[in-house]
Amino acid sequence: MSVTETLAAYVVDSDLAAIPNDVRAEARRAIVNYLGCALGGSIEPALDVAIETLAPFSGERHACVLGRAERFDALHAALLNGIGSHVHEYDDTLPKNYIHPSVPVASALFAYASANRVSGADFVHAFILGFEVESRIGNAVYPAHYEAGWHITSTTGVFGAAATIGKLLKLSTRQMVWAFGLAATQAAGIREMFGSMAKSYQPGRAAQNGYTAALLGRADFTAGERALEGPRGFAAVTAAKHDLAKVTAKLGTDFELRDNAYKPYACGLVVHPTIDGCSQLRREHRPAPGEIAAVRVRVAPLVLDLCNKRDLRRALESKYSIYHAAAIGLVRGKGGLQEFTDEAIRDPALARVRSVTTAVADPSITEDQAHIEVTLADGRKLVKLVEQSLGNVHRPLSNEQITEKFVDQAVLALPRPQVDAVVEKCWRIDELADAGDLARATMPASAGTAPARFARGPE
Amino acid sequence: MSVTETLAAYVVDSDLAAIPNDVRAEARRAIVNYLGCALGGSIEPALDVAIETLAPFSGERHACVLGRAERFDALHAALLNGIGSHVHEYDDTLPKNYIHPSVPVASALFAYASANRVSGADFVHAFILGFEVESRIGNAVYPAHYEAGWHITSTTGVFGAAATIGKLLKLSTRQMVWAFGLAATQAAGIREMFGSMAKSYQPGRAAQNGYTAALLGRADFTAGERALEGPRGFAAVTAAKHDLAKVTAKLGTDFELRDNAYKPYACGLVVHPTIDGCSQLRREHRPAPGEIAAVRVRVAPLVLDLCNKRDLRRALESKYSIYHAAAIGLVRGKGGLQEFTDEAIRDPALARVRSVTTAVADPSITEDQAHIEVTLADGRKLVKLVEQSLGNVHRPLSNEQITEKFVDQAVLALPRPQVDAVVEKCWRIDELADAGDLARATMPASAGTAPARFARGPE
Repeated sequence: MSVTETLAAYVVDSDLAAIPNDVRAEARRAIVNYLGCALGGSIEPALDVAIETLAPFSGERHACVLGRAERFDALHAALLNGIGSHVHEYDDTLPKNYIHPSVPVASALFAYASANRVSGADFVHAFILGFEVESRIGNAVYPAHYEAGWHITSTTGVFGAAATIGKLLKLSTRQMVWAFGLAATQAAGIREMFGSMAKSYQPGRAAQNGYTAALLGRADFTAGERALEGPRGFAAVTAAKHDLAKVTAKLGTDFELRDNAYKPYACGLVVHPTIDGCSQLRREHRPAPGEIAAVRVRVAPLVLDLCNKRDLRRALESKYSIYHAAAIGLVRGKGGLQEFTDEAIRDPALARVRSVTTAVADPSITEDQAHIEVTLADGRKLVKLVEQSLGNVHRPLSNEQITEKFVDQAVLALPRPQVDAVVEKCWRIDELADAGDLARATMPASAGTAPARFARGPE
Repeated sequence: MSVTETLAAYVVDSDLAAIPNDVRAEARRAIVNYLGCALGGSIEPALDVAIETLAPFSGERHACVLGRAERFDALHAALLNGIGSHVHEYDDTLPKNYIHPSVPVASALFAYASANRVSGADFVHAFILGFEVESRIGNAVYPAHYEAGWHITSTTGVFGAAATIGKLLKLSTRQMVWAFGLAATQAAGIREMFGSMAKSYQPGRAAQNGYTAALLGRADFTAGERALEGPRGFAAVTAAKHDLAKVTAKLGTDFELRDNAYKPYACGLVVHPTIDGCSQLRREHRPAPGEIAAVRVRVAPLVLDLCNKRDLRRALESKYSIYHAAAIGLVRGKGGLQEFTDEAIRDPALARVRSVTTAVADPSITEDQAHIEVTLADGRKLVKLVEQSLGNVHRPLSNEQITEKFVDQAVLALPRPQVDAVVEKCWRIDELADAGDLARATMPASAGTAPARFARGPE
């Protein structure tokens, strides 16, 4: 069997009972992390604009957009969920190939589940398979594909979405092969778009396109049957070097979810060790901001190349400032969405700590490490060496920390009691008789079924 | 100004009065040729399946699918028009870069015009601009882009569709730059899909994606502003070699439409000279099929590499048979859709002529040429050397031949009086107060507004 057919047959034939428990547990963590990100992003302008623009083109409004009052058809909901969940770039990461794997798969799945009845167990099973498909295809084409300029999250994510929806639609192997072919014809997204709204559009479109591919595959809309390995297929066209053996090696035994990582802080990865260390010092010593006389940070040289900005004018700049990173750790003990807003950069306590912070590049320190020395007004010194940053695979977030991250984002969109109910339900997703209940539970209480505030011509 | 911005500004600032008359005339020819192809393909299974699958996802049904009773929202109509008009691969070609340029642009335009009022003159103007944009981007990345395996019609077509709809939506230059960025994020389609339904899906999706890009650009959904020339932009990511100067050189003076070609026969290009020569012999000598004792064809070696198939079992094989090409020319004098059906390959007269035809590879003959020698039962010999095949840029189809091609296809879908009325209206497109009338004129008389025969759940 070809690589494409082997992968298709694996998805079609997979039985939930054969998925190890640790993989199912990691899937739950990924889904909770995903849903928190989707709620945090649900009030962002990029999503507002997309909803307003696309509302006249929605079919029957069976599906939920996570955290929003508006309903859409499931294909549009997949796109919109993808925009919302990726817009803050706070979602998960597979360090081995830089894919943010949950967004394309879960965005399609939540859209599907809110429009079609699917049990929580089947939802989690489909999620695991979609995650596996895109991650393995990513492994096969990384790094050449990424270095060429492809946004690997969207280009491989379309296969993940096709697999996850194709599993729920009960495609035959042949239909799944066609769905992968239709995914390959729609694999797109380039890194030139980073820093604009188009960045989050890409994994959203991957979710929508993969979902469409599965629908068409089920209807016997034919496609080339060597989507991955053909001479003009995905790997050959988009990666100067690739190793397709990685797609099928130990399929069903090794699971990519085991390597998944969750960002603890809503900013560039390289300042994470600094926030982590400063947050630990705050927890251990509780210094008042006014007591902090000087902060000296030693970090890997790359950190200063990327994040040596002390005077902040725009919120986005704060995500790439080693000085702001130290300040939020010491003053607030966290780095959620609200630590990187216009309000945060104007916060006098944070501004003061930024102003007394210095940073030194030290080649003996890795990008996962930071050395922090805080001098207090009374002369005391607090010192912390972070050897592995929180959130990397060696020091994963605990379930409690994932819950905190969820709540921290979701309260921006929903009342706290509703947030608590949603996160509690999300941790129990495999037990739900109808996974769509979880999507519907994220709608604001005032939600109607039609986007009445958006009225525009057909175009 | 950057390449992307220069191109965007050209589209935004273009005035119809500045377009030369010969270019407007060629645009009409391209549009008539396109619409005939769309009607010929409107009854194909690929389109039936797509319509049935996507019907539940349509928004308000303002737009026409050419030649069909079903209405859809304009974005879906753009996709479906693209599938129908490309499915027979009988549409136009720019020989310099192998783009089939009209499908992505006109598919979006007819969808737009059937849902929004636009004059015929503005329609033609927008068509010319979309054609120009995709063709020039194609020139810049060809041949490396095509050789890598990209289906250049869809990857560049998405920019053409964005330009054509963006012009009608009156985007600012900045918004057009964003629309091009959003087009670049969706540029996809690989040659591995050739020979399957996914082939025609690709330019259809390009039409739909480009249309979506224009809508989002108008709504200030931001994108990277160096879509074409950025270090991770379209050209760098998808073409090992490219020359972006070709995008902007002589913009407004040179028009790509002047090099457009229309296939006279619904089959592989390399057998066109043989059909052409045999059709000429039939016209000049009217041999009865039973009189034909032997046919000897001398052609370029490539022709026999690709088309040396005498025993035909499937209709598709007939499109790549030099023997069938000779037979349809001599027996029917044409090579329309009906010459490449299951009925045609079983036609005893055609089968007999195939059986007495021999073909010889001759390196002195170019791919645009054919030498044909027919021996009749009474010993007479008929000889024809085709030096430039009908349909190439040196021997373009006449307007009458484009009309004949239109009618030959459209009668498969619509009654002859309606076909005659549509083609007459199409030649006068610049004069129409509402170009949407032309799209609506292609609907079968029995057309309702809802696809009642398709009823399925939401999914």
